[in-house]
Amino acid sequence: MLDLIRDTLDSIKPIPLLRFETAQAHLDSLTKPPGSLGLLEDLAKKYAAIRDTDHPSINRKSVIVFVADHGVTEEGISAYPAKVTSQMVQNFLDGGAAVNVLARQQNAEVLVVDIGVNHKFAPHPKLLDKKISFGTRNLAKEPAMTRAEAEESLTIGIQIAAQLADKGIDLLATGEMGIGNTTASSAIFSVLSGFSPSKVTGRGTGIDDKTLDKKIAVIQHALEIHTPDPEDPIDILAKVGGFEIGGIMGLLLGAASKNIPVVIDGLISSAGASLAIKLNPAIKDYIFSSHRSVEPGHEVFFDLLQAPPLFDLKMRLGEGTGAVLAFNLIEAAVRIYSEMATFQSAGISDNAKG
Amino acid sequence: MLDLIRDTLDSIKPIPLLRFETAQAHLDSLTKPPGSLGLLEDLAKKYAAIRDTDHPSINRKSVIVFVADHGVTEEGISAYPAKVTSQMVQNFLDGGAAVNVLARQQNAEVLVVDIGVNHKFAPHPKLLDKKISFGTRNLAKEPAMTRAEAEESLTIGIQIAAQLADKGIDLLATGEMGIGNTTASSAIFSVLSGFSPSKVTGRGTGIDDKTLDKKIAVIQHALEIHTPDPEDPIDILAKVGGFEIGGIMGLLLGAASKNIPVVIDGLISSAGASLAIKLNPAIKDYIFSSHRSVEPGHEVFFDLLQAPPLFDLKMRLGEGTGAVLAFNLIEAAVRIYSEMATFQSAGISDNAKG
Repeated sequence: MLDLIRDTLDSIKPIPLLRFETAQAHLDSLTKPPGSLGLLEDLAKKYAAIRDTDHPSINRKSVIVFVADHGVTEEGISAYPAKVTSQMVQNFLDGGAAVNVLARQQNAEVLVVDIGVNHKFAPHPKLLDKKISFGTRNLAKEPAMTRAEAEESLTIGIQIAAQLADKGIDLLATGEMGIGNTTASSAIFSVLSGFSPSKVTGRGTGIDDKTLDKKIAVIQHALEIHTPDPEDPIDILAKVGGFEIGGIMGLLLGAASKNIPVVIDGLISSAGASLAIKLNPAIKDYIFSSHRSVEPGHEVFFDLLQAPPLFDLKMRLGEGTGAVLAFNLIEAAVRIYSEMATFQSAGISDNAKG
Repeated sequence: MLDLIRDTLDSIKPIPLLRFETAQAHLDSLTKPPGSLGLLEDLAKKYAAIRDTDHPSINRKSVIVFVADHGVTEEGISAYPAKVTSQMVQNFLDGGAAVNVLARQQNAEVLVVDIGVNHKFAPHPKLLDKKISFGTRNLAKEPAMTRAEAEESLTIGIQIAAQLADKGIDLLATGEMGIGNTTASSAIFSVLSGFSPSKVTGRGTGIDDKTLDKKIAVIQHALEIHTPDPEDPIDILAKVGGFEIGGIMGLLLGAASKNIPVVIDGLISSAGASLAIKLNPAIKDYIFSSHRSVEPGHEVFFDLLQAPPLFDLKMRLGEGTGAVLAFNLIEAAVRIYSEMATFQSAGISDNAKG
């Protein structure tokens, strides 16, 4: 393993439990029955603990959209042609995609990372050129990437997290785009869970029954010929993953090492997060889940995280759309923590505690 | 029934179904797989249909916090003393309560309506003085209010909705405060559902087992001595309800008659909404649910609405806190509808539809 990856993994510490206690004491002093804001209180405590502060605030938010192509699309397992990946990059840069709209609403920046798109883009201020190659190889026939390429994708994610930390970003969301990447993600979840591909594979952007059967068969075959090691996340990533999934893994490693919380989007982001947690379980401490995707494989992530999603909106778009929506709840929690009056300051009777 | 109430009820029309079709066609032209934004798409369609427009937008949002006292508090069924109701009014006016914090975040106005608080307040620009009396009577001994008082509370809500419509408000949330009002709400849900009080009564702001038993017994006794008519919502409101619950009912009637969507908060707001729906089922069309309260009686509302909540954050505060959080999801939906690029405008291949 590369030194940067190993050093980053080693530098990730569990978040300080004492912060939860002091944060709860503060929350209980606010003008509401103790615990009555439910999960909002949990979000505030976790955010304060990750940032290691008694005065949490959220000032700059970014969603990082890793984009890459997938060789497996030549098997015909997607509802859209592979060229949509690069077309959507342009849409992200033009601000017309769903994640752009939602990020504008939440006052968050969108950074698009070309980590392996099958297209050469002109330079653009919102586009980070980190292309490893013009897409992964077809996992139905050969490993999606070499181990060196897999490690490179993690390295890119780690480096981006470090740059964002330097810029003062204090809340991140993962996003992605890549025709074919639900196939890679379902394969990853099958390896991690031990469940058969048929149990963790869904319709992605909307394939019919026949294509779904083919997608499952492709994953089944890939797992048989590559036999990824369930205990080696980088082996799994290399054999059946994708560059964007590796970028997300790296981003999580880097963010955790810099005490930056990351909100995880849907199936593909969760595949990256699950592999990252496998590398170092302490990464769980730095993760906020967002929505429950309609993709069946997503449950494997929630089982691993041992925490439920914040909402179930029957979404299945990716891009970071669900994660960006969750920004609002985390900000609500932090504002509750920092802006509410206390029983004492408001002169309100506090009989419930006495 | 007063003419204003009857006329308002008669003027409420089901929302135009054709708007759903044209809105869906527009949503399907946007750069995402059809239906992939799940419930966000449903929210956008419903908002467009309520506003009866193909170009929905949200410009001014308000949360209306109806506040009143409850005579039943003399039975000792609450975790906090009754004077907290008036103390919290001051907190709302000072901007220190949870609903103030969340409304600021969502860029929404907070309007506090004294519809029956046991305190005389000095005039304040954010406080609407609509006091019917200094609190309801003790429902454990006599009807909470007269039928005339119940109708007055609805009238107040209707008139407020009309004023908000004139001001150009295009999205409302219900809120409330009143020590003792989970007792009134649980009684209402028991009547509406036919379930025993023990099934629909919870711990409110946090009472212990002994107090919960007493609360259930008080409701049971009240239902036995007053026998509210399950088919007459105003009779239910008068005998076991509260002024703030009547205000919420009226607000819903008035908002629906003016094509203004209303987001419903937790248990107490939902009790008012359920009674309003009983008066005219078309009101369902104008309602957005928000969160699922931990109070067991809340399920009766979702059964009546035949729609699930948007999130389950284990909250139990009231004030409008859950409803205001939902503002963000509804706005996200409307922005998606109006700001996203289309396949055609972005030049993206749209094979999934062909």
